[in-house]
Amino acid sequence: MGEIRYPLSINQATTKVQWTLREAVEGYAKQDVHGIAVWRDKLEECGLREAARILSDNGMTVTGLCRGGMFPATDKAGLKAAIDDNLRAVDEAVAIGAQCLVLVCGGLPEGSKDIAGARAMIRDGIAATLPHARAAGMPLAIEPLHPMYAADRACINSLEQSNDICDELGAGVGLAVDVYHVWWDPYLRREIDRAAKADPGRLLAFHICDWLSPTKDMLTDRGMMGDGVIDIPDFRAMMENAGYDGYVEVEIFSTRWWNTDPDEVVATCIERHRSAC
Amino acid sequence: MGEIRYPLSINQATTKVQWTLREAVEGYAKQDVHGIAVWRDKLEECGLREAARILSDNGMTVTGLCRGGMFPATDKAGLKAAIDDNLRAVDEAVAIGAQCLVLVCGGLPEGSKDIAGARAMIRDGIAATLPHARAAGMPLAIEPLHPMYAADRACINSLEQSNDICDELGAGVGLAVDVYHVWWDPYLRREIDRAAKADPGRLLAFHICDWLSPTKDMLTDRGMMGDGVIDIPDFRAMMENAGYDGYVEVEIFSTRWWNTDPDEVVATCIERHRSAC
Repeated sequence: MGEIRYPLSINQATTKVQWTLREAVEGYAKQDVHGIAVWRDKLEECGLREAARILSDNGMTVTGLCRGGMFPATDKAGLKAAIDDNLRAVDEAVAIGAQCLVLVCGGLPEGSKDIAGARAMIRDGIAATLPHARAAGMPLAIEPLHPMYAADRACINSLEQSNDICDELGAGVGLAVDVYHVWWDPYLRREIDRAAKADPGRLLAFHICDWLSPTKDMLTDRGMMGDGVIDIPDFRAMMENAGYDGYVEVEIFSTRWWNTDPDEVVATCIERHRSAC
Repeated sequence: MGEIRYPLSINQATTKVQWTLREAVEGYAKQDVHGIAVWRDKLEECGLREAARILSDNGMTVTGLCRGGMFPATDKAGLKAAIDDNLRAVDEAVAIGAQCLVLVCGGLPEGSKDIAGARAMIRDGIAATLPHARAAGMPLAIEPLHPMYAADRACINSLEQSNDICDELGAGVGLAVDVYHVWWDPYLRREIDRAAKADPGRLLAFHICDWLSPTKDMLTDRGMMGDGVIDIPDFRAMMENAGYDGYVEVEIFSTRWWNTDPDEVVATCIERHRSAC
């Protein structure tokens, strides 16, 4: 702790209730945070060309575009629509110079109990998106989500599973590692090392926040770094020892922080990045 | 579906708000359910000798005693107290003729962020309990809990991890497989097969309920079989193909079902065991 190894980025979900894209960029930059991850709804609201200009004018590094994925569907038309949307997301990620397109892969289609089938659709959906992503030079970052989201958000739920998909699909797809989703994984170190040693390396993004205990809401009760039970310095050392040298991106879904003055949220992220990471 | 392969047991947590141990035994037996898993708080309330008599008089098979475990502690005295409690739990399990002592292994000690340390305490705690359990002929059943409980209930969170602990500790310790906790696991089949093929086999208990989507509460919103997204017939087939031939035990923590007439709860368990499992 104390010594800062990675530059700081803030995922705009952290201030999504308070700030538009422009406000977030200017609010982060004002406190010397020059990394941001962008959400597509905010991008659409702002307009792609204007967003690219704002990001560039403020010297922002875009550590990710959130989000592609959401592949599983009830029929072929639905799967095709999802793939088309991912192809567009690749173009948007390129337009704003994002370092990767983050994939929240999707859960069970409405009415389905076939998790193996949903996982196959995810693999097929990523495979169908990959040629365009490779041609565009835009890495796809599979973000394994906490198993409590397996039904409704993503049935890609561990680093091992994500690494297996990357093995199968080859270059152009890697991982977004979020401490919130994987901190509990008994095989964390093994799979981070495996991702790092793959050729090309797969550690595309590193997201931080904290796991509050008790957690009062499955969606909107993530913690500020230091307020929960995750040993973030140890996690960071694992990433660092594996060779990750990119940004550390704060992503907090929290009604508490959404109800806080956003300048204070940014200041707290900066302070905790120093003291608790 | 339709053909019933496993006999039905009901974990008394399913009716814990409505019924004492005597009421549960009589209530289950009245509807021809002759399997029950017993909780220690209910056992203590009833008295061990009286409980053994009630269970025997009603021809109940005790598919498990809940629960041992909860090993991690802030100091050595705490760990020793936990082990002593587990030794007593073994004796209680023997006294009521339980098929296994279910271990909910415990989460992070108060104030700790050291999940690896907590896991080591769990391994050491089980190792310290095992000689007595072996001598008493009482199998210890590690129940991997859903990763959303890693902080506060159990940081044993997957079948792979549980199998690894069993490999390390040897005979006398196996698994309680609960669909709620592990349904999301991408390596479910692999690890069930591994548990079954170990010598001696490790599939000691099979618990069912359902995962509701959305889930409104992390503790008390488990679903009745058929009301959620778990493919229970497929899961049962996996267990069966691996060679499991014991009871299927319904365990539902749910304010909805705790607020329902317990006779109706039992009737619903029986009906869903037929139609949705």
